[in-house]
Amino acid sequence: MMLSIEQTNPMTTDAPIRWTRKHLLSLEELSADEIRFILDTADSFKEVSTRSIKKVPALRGKVLVNTFFEDSTRTRTSFALAAQRLSADVIDFSEKTSSVSKGETLVDTARNIEAMGVDIIVLRHPAAGAAQKLARNVQCSVVNAGDGAHEHPTQGLLDLYTIRERFGRIEGLTVAVVGDIANSRVARSNLWGLLKMGAKVIFVGPSTLCPRAFEQLGATVVHNFDDVIGQIDVINMLRVQFERIKSSQFPSVREFTSFFGLTWDRFQRCKKDVFIMHPGPMNRGIEIQSDIADGPQSGILKQVTNGLAVRMAVLYLVAGV
Amino acid sequence: MMLSIEQTNPMTTDAPIRWTRKHLLSLEELSADEIRFILDTADSFKEVSTRSIKKVPALRGKVLVNTFFEDSTRTRTSFALAAQRLSADVIDFSEKTSSVSKGETLVDTARNIEAMGVDIIVLRHPAAGAAQKLARNVQCSVVNAGDGAHEHPTQGLLDLYTIRERFGRIEGLTVAVVGDIANSRVARSNLWGLLKMGAKVIFVGPSTLCPRAFEQLGATVVHNFDDVIGQIDVINMLRVQFERIKSSQFPSVREFTSFFGLTWDRFQRCKKDVFIMHPGPMNRGIEIQSDIADGPQSGILKQVTNGLAVRMAVLYLVAGV
Amino acid sequence: MMLSIEQTNPMTTDAPIRWTRKHLLSLEELSADEIRFILDTADSFKEVSTRSIKKVPALRGKVLVNTFFEDSTRTRTSFALAAQRLSADVIDFSEKTSSVSKGETLVDTARNIEAMGVDIIVLRHPAAGAAQKLARNVQCSVVNAGDGAHEHPTQGLLDLYTIRERFGRIEGLTVAVVGDIANSRVARSNLWGLLKMGAKVIFVGPSTLCPRAFEQLGATVVHNFDDVIGQIDVINMLRVQFERIKSSQFPSVREFTSFFGLTWDRFQRCKKDVFIMHPGPMNRGIEIQSDIADGPQSGILKQVTNGLAVRMAVLYLVAGV
Repeated sequence: MMLSIEQTNPMTTDAPIRWTRKHLLSLEELSADEIRFILDTADSFKEVSTRSIKKVPALRGKVLVNTFFEDSTRTRTSFALAAQRLSADVIDFSEKTSSVSKGETLVDTARNIEAMGVDIIVLRHPAAGAAQKLARNVQCSVVNAGDGAHEHPTQGLLDLYTIRERFGRIEGLTVAVVGDIANSRVARSNLWGLLKMGAKVIFVGPSTLCPRAFEQLGATVVHNFDDVIGQIDVINMLRVQFERIKSSQFPSVREFTSFFGLTWDRFQRCKKDVFIMHPGPMNRGIEIQSDIADGPQSGILKQVTNGLAVRMAVLYLVAGV
Repeated sequence: MMLSIEQTNPMTTDAPIRWTRKHLLSLEELSADEIRFILDTADSFKEVSTRSIKKVPALRGKVLVNTFFEDSTRTRTSFALAAQRLSADVIDFSEKTSSVSKGETLVDTARNIEAMGVDIIVLRHPAAGAAQKLARNVQCSVVNAGDGAHEHPTQGLLDLYTIRERFGRIEGLTVAVVGDIANSRVARSNLWGLLKMGAKVIFVGPSTLCPRAFEQLGATVVHNFDDVIGQIDVINMLRVQFERIKSSQFPSVREFTSFFGLTWDRFQRCKKDVFIMHPGPMNRGIEIQSDIADGPQSGILKQVTNGLAVRMAVLYLVAGV
Repeated sequence: MMLSIEQTNPMTTDAPIRWTRKHLLSLEELSADEIRFILDTADSFKEVSTRSIKKVPALRGKVLVNTFFEDSTRTRTSFALAAQRLSADVIDFSEKTSSVSKGETLVDTARNIEAMGVDIIVLRHPAAGAAQKLARNVQCSVVNAGDGAHEHPTQGLLDLYTIRERFGRIEGLTVAVVGDIANSRVARSNLWGLLKMGAKVIFVGPSTLCPRAFEQLGATVVHNFDDVIGQIDVINMLRVQFERIKSSQFPSVREFTSFFGLTWDRFQRCKKDVFIMHPGPMNRGIEIQSDIADGPQSGILKQVTNGLAVRMAVLYLVAGV
C-alpha cells in the first residue's frame, strides 16, 4: 500500500515549490507557481480515474465532510468521488437534515464537525466570505466550493486545467467569459486564475450584469459580443441564472440569446480552433446552442472529468499540510 | 483478494450462456436463458450476505451512482447495500440536492455524472422509458430501478428468484398479480419474467385498473378474484397507491378490500401451499390482512433479502461487460 | 489487520463484567458496571481518533443504518463517523427519501431494513419508546439515538465520559441540569447515568418546565438557579427549544435568560473549577453566554469529540453480541 502512495505521490517529483496552504479559499490569494503546482498534481491524479480500480490509498483514514448550503450536482458529487478515489471517508452534511434549521451559526456547526475528528470541510455557502470565516475558526482544512458571488476556486482551477490540456499553455490566450458576470463566482475565479497564468480576460455581457468596474480588476469589459468574437481563443459561457436575475436587469431571454448567446451564426464567426466551455448546468438554446455544446470544439464534459482530478489534487495537497 | 473474487465468481461455473448486456433496462428484452443466468448468479451471491464479513472485492474501485427521482426505501437502500457488499463506492444523487431543480435535462445530468468516471447509474424516474433513453446516451452501465408505469426489472427478478426458491421451479406455476395493474411497473416486470420462465399469469383487479387489453400481452385478466382464488400457486398483492388513483377509477378503500383484498376468508379458500408476495410497502388491512403478511406462507421479507442477492448479481454482470 | 483488532480490543483487558446486551435503549436499564464498561471501552477507542489513519477493522463488513426521523447534525454524523472509524458500512435512511412518506409503519420499515442483512439500526424518532418497540420486533441490534422526551443514552454516556475525564471520577459530584427538563431526553439520560454512577443531580428550571415530580426519580428539583449556584461541580445547560415550548409555559426569552441563563454574573458566583457542558446546538446569549461557552472551563467541544469514542464503544459492544 505504501508503495502505491509513493507511485502516485506527486511530491516525489522535483517540484518547483513546496505546498504550504492548509486551505483553498480563493484563486485571488494563490501565486502563479501555486496554481501551476495544483495543475501538475492534478496531472498525476488524472490517470487514476482511467484505471480499472480507481483508487489510491493517499487519504485512507482521513475524513471529508461535504457541507453544502446550496444545491449542487456536479460540485458535491465531484468532491465526494474525488475523496473516495483517494480512499478518504466522506460524510454528507446538507442543510435540510442538520441543526442549521435549529438556528445554529455556521461557525458553531463547523466547530462541532471538526471536534469529531474531521480532516477537511468542503463548504458551499450563499454568503461571500463564508469559507474564509470558517478557515479562521477551525483547525482542519477548509476548501471553498463556492461562496456567494465571490469565488469558486476549484471551478477556476478545472477551467485552467482544461484550457492548458487543450492548448498546451494558458499564457497569451484570450478568454471571454460571457453572461451574468456580476453575480458569478465562476467569473471571478476565472479572472484571477487566468490573469495570474498570463491570459487576457474579456468579460462580455449587458452593462447591468457586466459593469465596467471589472476593468479595475484587470479584465476587459465588452457589452457587444460581436465586437470581439473573432479574437477569442476560449469562450466560457456562464449559465443564465433565472432564479437570480431581477427583471429590471434582464429584459427577456430571447433578447439575451440574441445579443449574448453562443448561437450557430456567432460560432461561425469565431476563430477556427475556438474552444467552448461552460460550467454547467446548461440552458440549451438559451446561452448556448445545443449542437455547439455537443460538438468537437466543446470542452464541457472534459471540464467535468478534469474537475475530479483537480479536486483530488486539492484535497491531497491541503490534507498534507 | 483475487482468490476471493474467483471463489465467488459465478462465471467460472460452466454457464449455459455468456452475459453480454451492459445495461438492465427491462425483463421484456431478456431471454429466458438470460433471466436464468441472473438468478443462478444471485444464488452464488446470496451466501455472501450470511457471512460475518459481508463483502467480496468483485467491484472494488468501481463507482455506482444511485439516481432517484422518486422516493424509495427498499430499492435505493438495497442497491446501495448490494454495491457496498461488492466493495463498490456508492454516491447518492437525489433530486432535492441536485441541479435538476435548476432545470437541467436528465441526459445532461447523466452525462455529467458519467464524465466523473462513474461505472453504473441506477435510475428511478417517473417517466416510462427514462432508463432506455439514458442507456442510449451514456457509455456507462444503466440499471433501471423503476421507470414510470413501465418496468421495474430487479423487482421482477427478485420475485422470480423468491418463487423459484420456494417451489424449486417457475415453469407450470399459476401466479396472480392483484390490484392496480394499469399503473404498476411491478406488474409489467412480473408479467414478462413469469411468461418467459413458463408460468401462467393472471392479472386481477377492477376493470378500471386492470383493463382487458393486457390479455394481448399474454396475461389472463380477471375482474373477480374469487373466480380464480382456488387455482393460484402464488399471489403477488400490489400496493394500493392512494397517491395515484383517481376517484373515478376507485370508489372506496372498503370496496377495494372487500373485492380484491387478501382477507382471511379469501386466504382460506386458497390452495394449501399458496405463496404470498408483496413488493412493499404494505397497507396492512387494505390490500392484505396483517396475519397473512406475517404468516408462514408469506415470502414478503424473503423478497427483500433476495432483492439484495439479485441486485448484487445484476451489478456484477453489467459491470463486467 | 487482525493484530490491529487485538490492539484495540478492550475485551482482552481483564474486564469486571462481560457485555451481554444486543441493544442500547436507555441508561435506566443499565447497571453501574455496564456503564463503567462502556466508558472504559470508549477510552481505548478515543486513541484511534488521534491517529493519522483513523480506522480499525473491528466492524469490517458490518452494516449500520442511520434511521433518523428528526433532524440532527451531531448525532447522525457522529454515529456515521464512529461506524466508518470501525470500518463498518453506513447507509443513511432519512424520512424524506423513504417509504415512510407512503405510510409504512416504523416496524415494517425496520423489518425491511433488517431483511437486507443490516447489523445495527440507529434510531432517532419523535415517539418515546420507539427504540424499545423496534428492539422487540427485529433480530439486529438497535441503538437509541433519541426517542421523544424519553432517553438519549449515548448523549448521557458521553456526558458521563466527559465528566469522568475532567474530574477523574463521577461519584460525589453535584451536577445541575438546567432548562426545559420536562421535554428533555438529555435530562432523563443524564439523571439515570449520574445517579447510577453516584453523583447528585439537581434539575433547575421554572416549575412549568421542571416539575417537582422529578424528585420521585431521585433528582433534587430547584426553581431558583441562584439558590444552588455555589454548590455545583458541573452545569449542563439544556438548549431552549423554541419550537417545543408553548407560550403559556414560557413567558419570554429575556425572562428565561434572566432567571435560568448561564450569564457572566452567575458564572462568577460558581465554584472556581466549575465545568460547563451543553448538548448543543447552543443558543448563544440565551441559555449560555458566548464567552463562557468558548472559555477554558467549557467542555462543550470535548463532549462532541468524546461522543465519537463513546459511540464507537457502543457500536462495537452491541455488534459483538
